Amino acid sequence: MSRAYNFSAGPAVLPEPVLRQVQAELLEWRDERASVMEVSHRGKAFVECAAEAERDLRELMAVPDDYHVLFLQGGATTLSALLALNLARADQTADFVLTGHWGEKALDNMKPSLQVNVAASGKAGGYTGIPPRGDWALTPGAAFLHYTPNETIHGVEFHDIPDAGDVPLVADVSSNFLSAPLDVSRFGVLYGGAQKNLGPSGLAIAIVRKDLLGRHGRELPPIFELLNQAKNDSMFNTPPTFAWYVLGLVLKWLRAEGGAAAMGERNRRKAANLYAAIDGSGGFYRNPVDPAARSWMNVPFFLPDEAREKAFLKEADAAGLLGLKGHRAVGGIRASIYNAMPEAGVQALVDFMADFARRNG
Amino acid sequence: MSRAYNFSAGPAVLPEPVLRQVQAELLEWRDERASVMEVSHRGKAFVECAAEAERDLRELMAVPDDYHVLFLQGGATTLSALLALNLARADQTADFVLTGHWGEKALDNMKPSLQVNVAASGKAGGYTGIPPRGDWALTPGAAFLHYTPNETIHGVEFHDIPDAGDVPLVADVSSNFLSAPLDVSRFGVLYGGAQKNLGPSGLAIAIVRKDLLGRHGRELPPIFELLNQAKNDSMFNTPPTFAWYVLGLVLKWLRAEGGAAAMGERNRRKAANLYAAIDGSGGFYRNPVDPAARSWMNVPFFLPDEAREKAFLKEADAAGLLGLKGHRAVGGIRASIYNAMPEAGVQALVDFMADFARRNG
Repeated sequence: MSRAYNFSAGPAVLPEPVLRQVQAELLEWRDERASVMEVSHRGKAFVECAAEAERDLRELMAVPDDYHVLFLQGGATTLSALLALNLARADQTADFVLTGHWGEKALDNMKPSLQVNVAASGKAGGYTGIPPRGDWALTPGAAFLHYTPNETIHGVEFHDIPDAGDVPLVADVSSNFLSAPLDVSRFGVLYGGAQKNLGPSGLAIAIVRKDLLGRHGRELPPIFELLNQAKNDSMFNTPPTFAWYVLGLVLKWLRAEGGAAAMGERNRRKAANLYAAIDGSGGFYRNPVDPAARSWMNVPFFLPDEAREKAFLKEADAAGLLGLKGHRAVGGIRASIYNAMPEAGVQALVDFMADFARRNG
Repeated sequence: MSRAYNFSAGPAVLPEPVLRQVQAELLEWRDERASVMEVSHRGKAFVECAAEAERDLRELMAVPDDYHVLFLQGGATTLSALLALNLARADQTADFVLTGHWGEKALDNMKPSLQVNVAASGKAGGYTGIPPRGDWALTPGAAFLHYTPNETIHGVEFHDIPDAGDVPLVADVSSNFLSAPLDVSRFGVLYGGAQKNLGPSGLAIAIVRKDLLGRHGRELPPIFELLNQAKNDSMFNTPPTFAWYVLGLVLKWLRAEGGAAAMGERNRRKAANLYAAIDGSGGFYRNPVDPAARSWMNVPFFLPDEAREKAFLKEADAAGLLGLKGHRAVGGIRASIYNAMPEAGVQALVDFMADFARRNG
């Protein structure tokens, strides 16, 4: 075995016990005499597996009964386009608070389907913090307020939930799904791709307050109508069965590890360790984000110059620390430290950083 | 090992050598020191894997250079909705020839986005054949003509390509992808979900004549704009990486087995064997489809009464012949005998059928 610590932003590290179980039962799943990839999504075994995953997710996130939990094709970008069609009439306005790239992308994909208002944007500040609440230009009676609680590229995270009054909050939680406890009842919709904190790519989750669906007044293709998925236990069409199954195993692993509360504690420690290494490096490593808005999941940082960043990435890779290259939009280094990244992985990175700084400072 | 012969309609049987390779390299893929599920879709290794799959698909199907090959999220139903938005203006008409359930479903999902004309339908005849060509009420200058070359539920298949003149043919080939040689240049679009002949569920393929994209005049969410996927090697967003990887392995298996020509021969023999067993049963087994339109992929058949169908399914399952229950829309038995179903599996079914008929005739 030469598995390394994988800091990729997504697709990302999965819990090793989950991968071992997938491997062990890949050719014969349960009593099916076939791979989980080969069985009908309408067969008893897979329907049970799918329902288990929904039950576990509801329990882990304490999802109230008046919310649908949908397992859908695609990722957050596809879902943002679908949510715009499903949550509002074309003449209604949605507000956006932008704190990074993914908020912009959601706006781009929602804009053709409704009226949009950028209530606040951190762009002018290089997405290094959250625009002050008092400056948000919210639309009275907006259909919803969209934001991205954790921005993976710039490493900006909300550590509380904005108060939007009666306007439903719609939040892309792709990169912080189940990374800490979250009060689902404060949201209209929580949605995201699975491939960062929950499973493989190709599956997206939407947790939707039931009263928000079916009021858009549009004639949609039935496959775009989320109410059809809600009425059919997310099997209105053939779902991505393998990804759903793996996500179910990840949820069982999360339960065994102590759930959202334990993850929150562990992720807080991991992030604190890494930011302390950056801030304690005497300026050799630098993270530009407002400390109050620093992400626990994605930690971007910079070295004094690009030559040393390049050397850092090369040596880190050789030392078994993978996927650390920053997003091309911002450059530098980025460590994604999702739920499945163990504390030992972060410690290995911190140790490497100290050694590299000593040799190159 | 107690893997059985799996006649499921989809998700469906995969080649066992493919599953064994997936299993062997599940925790460490190539030199990545991580699972294929865990690596970035933008990393060198996965980009190579993705490009290999496209090259192999192009070679296996002899796809001309003026066609895009797109690897997309979702299944055929999602794609049908997207194709309606991408291939025509809202005021243009698309013609439909309906030979079963999936053609109807494509119509339902395209209808909200353009004008539709049902040029021909086999519904009145219970979808047991292809409406005579002379009776098709085609629209001059239609944006495209949509049909479903193989209908999995009713077991109706076109064994030649309809002539639509200059009107582009758009065909859902989910269930007969690479089941036999096909002249791609006769089509505007070939599309389908992977989960029957090509791989796991959660991935769809579209082979699109390049000049057909970008002329719809709509303002679409960028994620719905197929031209964006075409320009970004199907990585406009995070693709379903694991499904793409497995599909790549299936394509390599298909090449090793002799490609579309060899598959066509093998599938013809498998279907001939099974239909001979039905037709030679003295009426105990019955397939209602016009012999000229019988499917090589999905063979539905009926016993004299439901009680014996129930017994048949139970005993077949115990004999290691799985997934034979007919679709709820038609009942009875259905054997799906896609590329990965070996001839020995069909022979085992044929032997079982003879024995069951002897004991229950």
